[in-house]
Amino acid sequence: MDRKDLALLCDYYEITMGNGYFDLGMKEKTAYFDVFYRKNPDHGGYAVAAGLEQIAEYIKGLRFSASDIEYLRKRKVFSEDFLKYLETFRFTGDVWAVPEGTVVFPYEPILIVRAPLIEAQLVETYVLLQINHQSLIATKASRIVRAADGRPVSEFGSRRAHGEDAAVLGARAAFIGGCSGTACALSDKDYGVPAGGTMAHSWVQLFENEYLAFKAYCKLYPDNPTLLVDTYNTLESGVPSAIRAIKDVLRPLGKTACAVRIDSGDITYLTRKIRKMLDEAGLTDCKITVSNSLDEHIITEILRQGACVDAFGVGERLITSASDAVFGGVYKLAATEEDGVITPKIKVSENIEKITNPHFKKVYRIYSKETGKAEADLICLYDEEFSEDEPLEIFDPHYTWKKKTFTDFRLRELLVPVFKNGKCVYEFPPIEEVRRYCAEEIGTMWDEVLRFENPHNYYVDLSDELWELKNRMIEEKRN
Amino acid sequence: MDRKDLALLCDYYEITMGNGYFDLGMKEKTAYFDVFYRKNPDHGGYAVAAGLEQIAEYIKGLRFSASDIEYLRKRKVFSEDFLKYLETFRFTGDVWAVPEGTVVFPYEPILIVRAPLIEAQLVETYVLLQINHQSLIATKASRIVRAADGRPVSEFGSRRAHGEDAAVLGARAAFIGGCSGTACALSDKDYGVPAGGTMAHSWVQLFENEYLAFKAYCKLYPDNPTLLVDTYNTLESGVPSAIRAIKDVLRPLGKTACAVRIDSGDITYLTRKIRKMLDEAGLTDCKITVSNSLDEHIITEILRQGACVDAFGVGERLITSASDAVFGGVYKLAATEEDGVITPKIKVSENIEKITNPHFKKVYRIYSKETGKAEADLICLYDEEFSEDEPLEIFDPHYTWKKKTFTDFRLRELLVPVFKNGKCVYEFPPIEEVRRYCAEEIGTMWDEVLRFENPHNYYVDLSDELWELKNRMIEEKRN
Repeated sequence: MDRKDLALLCDYYEITMGNGYFDLGMKEKTAYFDVFYRKNPDHGGYAVAAGLEQIAEYIKGLRFSASDIEYLRKRKVFSEDFLKYLETFRFTGDVWAVPEGTVVFPYEPILIVRAPLIEAQLVETYVLLQINHQSLIATKASRIVRAADGRPVSEFGSRRAHGEDAAVLGARAAFIGGCSGTACALSDKDYGVPAGGTMAHSWVQLFENEYLAFKAYCKLYPDNPTLLVDTYNTLESGVPSAIRAIKDVLRPLGKTACAVRIDSGDITYLTRKIRKMLDEAGLTDCKITVSNSLDEHIITEILRQGACVDAFGVGERLITSASDAVFGGVYKLAATEEDGVITPKIKVSENIEKITNPHFKKVYRIYSKETGKAEADLICLYDEEFSEDEPLEIFDPHYTWKKKTFTDFRLRELLVPVFKNGKCVYEFPPIEEVRRYCAEEIGTMWDEVLRFENPHNYYVDLSDELWELKNRMIEEKRN
Repeated sequence: MDRKDLALLCDYYEITMGNGYFDLGMKEKTAYFDVFYRKNPDHGGYAVAAGLEQIAEYIKGLRFSASDIEYLRKRKVFSEDFLKYLETFRFTGDVWAVPEGTVVFPYEPILIVRAPLIEAQLVETYVLLQINHQSLIATKASRIVRAADGRPVSEFGSRRAHGEDAAVLGARAAFIGGCSGTACALSDKDYGVPAGGTMAHSWVQLFENEYLAFKAYCKLYPDNPTLLVDTYNTLESGVPSAIRAIKDVLRPLGKTACAVRIDSGDITYLTRKIRKMLDEAGLTDCKITVSNSLDEHIITEILRQGACVDAFGVGERLITSASDAVFGGVYKLAATEEDGVITPKIKVSENIEKITNPHFKKVYRIYSKETGKAEADLICLYDEEFSEDEPLEIFDPHYTWKKKTFTDFRLRELLVPVFKNGKCVYEFPPIEEVRRYCAEEIGTMWDEVLRFENPHNYYVDLSDELWELKNRMIEEKRN
């Protein structure tokens, strides 16, 4: 997709603050910001991180155009020196992040920016926007795909997306989360998400009757056509017409791959009737695809009721994550650095959940060597080391008497370098590989973490050192 | 904003159908499509239409690039003649729509496309995407602004928006719906939505203490600064430090306009305490701004409790319309035309609410001359005329014994021409004017329609002729 000028796609206060840091001579101070989120969407047990590739593209291309600077000058509050500085502005800092498709949990850093203050501040809005949007959709897709229990789920929601990017990148995120493809052609062209789709009701309405509409379609696209059978009366005319067209056109060509789709009515009742009609007509290879305001809960329920469905098309409730449309990722100052000395920073709040974890940190995931399953995540200071050869005891940061000791375990550091001194050092894998990695990540999670109802609260604990630092700083700030 | 290649921002089936119509020699057939929606967001009584200007830009720029056509060729299902046709593809049809900012209701056409079949089909996805997104946000903004009861509401949600456009055009739609401005700088530069904003918690954390952070800020921006007072302890340190900084810096300059903002804690309790502290310090002109996951219901409730708030910042729940994130606009074939003869089309469905209104139509709004208030909308055939000089009887399309007769009324046609033979004939007003028009529109609605709980079901009735045509066609299709 063509790149746009995105430097001003930020909250205005990033610029007022930037101008302030500049004028106060603070611009060379280095800041560390953490991106983390506070609760899993849909009361789920996990989230899937996504959006990093677009963040990298943004950072690489980040500069202020002449018209951007002209816009700022007209506001009459920014110093000319600052505007001059923006002319040659580039991001020169470091970024670490979890790879796209990683399963993540509340309160752990999923991206860290270390950069001169103004730069680190300026990227806040865009970094959050991409992570919040794509992680939201990837997480929802992961849930829906798991509900579909092996049946392919296609993303159908462009028309209900919140704008152009929400459609195109939403389809990308849905693919990472496990969807088999999308209806959005541009997402295929630009991001390699396989696009497919067949007919709307308007196609059927434009022919004299359904049989003629289906016949014409099968002739044009004899390789695995999907016929939409609910324009007038699904069981009385739609399905019989589809059966006739398939027999008349596809059979003589020796083609058996085909499908019918319904987009209305009682899915369980109709699909069972349709399956019977197709089988009785000898079309046992003809698949049944359903759509119509589906999500993970409806899919779970209709499969439990014995609906005969081979594939799902999921639109509005996936592309907007309608049941929980906000992924609340935040961007919080964790430390500053001057002359190589790092000073941890904290925000203390009336809302306990808004208190931040101070300092430059890293995150380890602890896997059981026996099962290969993820057991807990441990957030620690950037220079702490742990050995796999010694027992590792972790404890709940709020109820510190809740402890757990690991003996036969493997440690994996979750955050990988993405930018070093302003240069992108991370090679982005092809989208299919991200999707495969995400499926593997889900495979390392216990069912208790994955379930929809009352999932197990996956442990995300703080190291001794970090816990002590945090509590010391809270006491200081409140006194 | 730079335009992107958007021809492929469509559902893939638009292209498979287009190729089919082309190969079957149906491309010159003219089609009429209606855009309408089926339910108001948030169980509300109305919606605000928005997104038309971006649709017009899209239609004006609509063409297939060489790379688009190459992408399609590689799919190996489209005929070379069709791909050749796409090279010079332009939209040549007509569009009618309600102006942006119009109050609209379920089931009435808010946009009509009349164009050669392939063209009319191809624009479906993008037209819906823009209307669905921007109408959703404009409607949510209208509700939130009404809850704020005269206090300005600023849109703050870029970081939680569903991608770039959701942030920038979401801010535009929120402004149309009544917000006073946005935090998104790019929405100001590109669309003229006034951007503002002051400081994040990180600003406060970067100074030795809050007083120094506020003092530095007031010196830099002495004209109406907003100080964020909840980084450590709102009442113990935040507000006292703000008062000191305002007195030390602003007072000597003779400036009185300023504000404090809180983003956490119990809003009612804190704002009452803060108001008292400010007043006792003689800062009666200092305003109080609040944010933190607000929406129309929370705002209504805290004002009812007596919170002392002068302005609101609303983020995630506005920019995603979190409580109802889907505006379900649809695009349905209403008629075809050949040699000047219009043939109405209908879709009949198992789901009653999915049955469409056939034929080329127009919509009248009936106003009481006495009160100036909107009383009902009447959908009729394109060539029906009604006189304001004769009594007008309308009836409920489902319960036809529910009738109402108007005598002293004014009629207004809601849909205006936007494109004629592919040429844009509509002059888009400046955004401030759209915002003002929307406020006027809200002013013509009875309070019963506007209220949040159990709003009155505004009448949207069908003319005799349309009602009879529809029922005749349903009978035909079901038999």
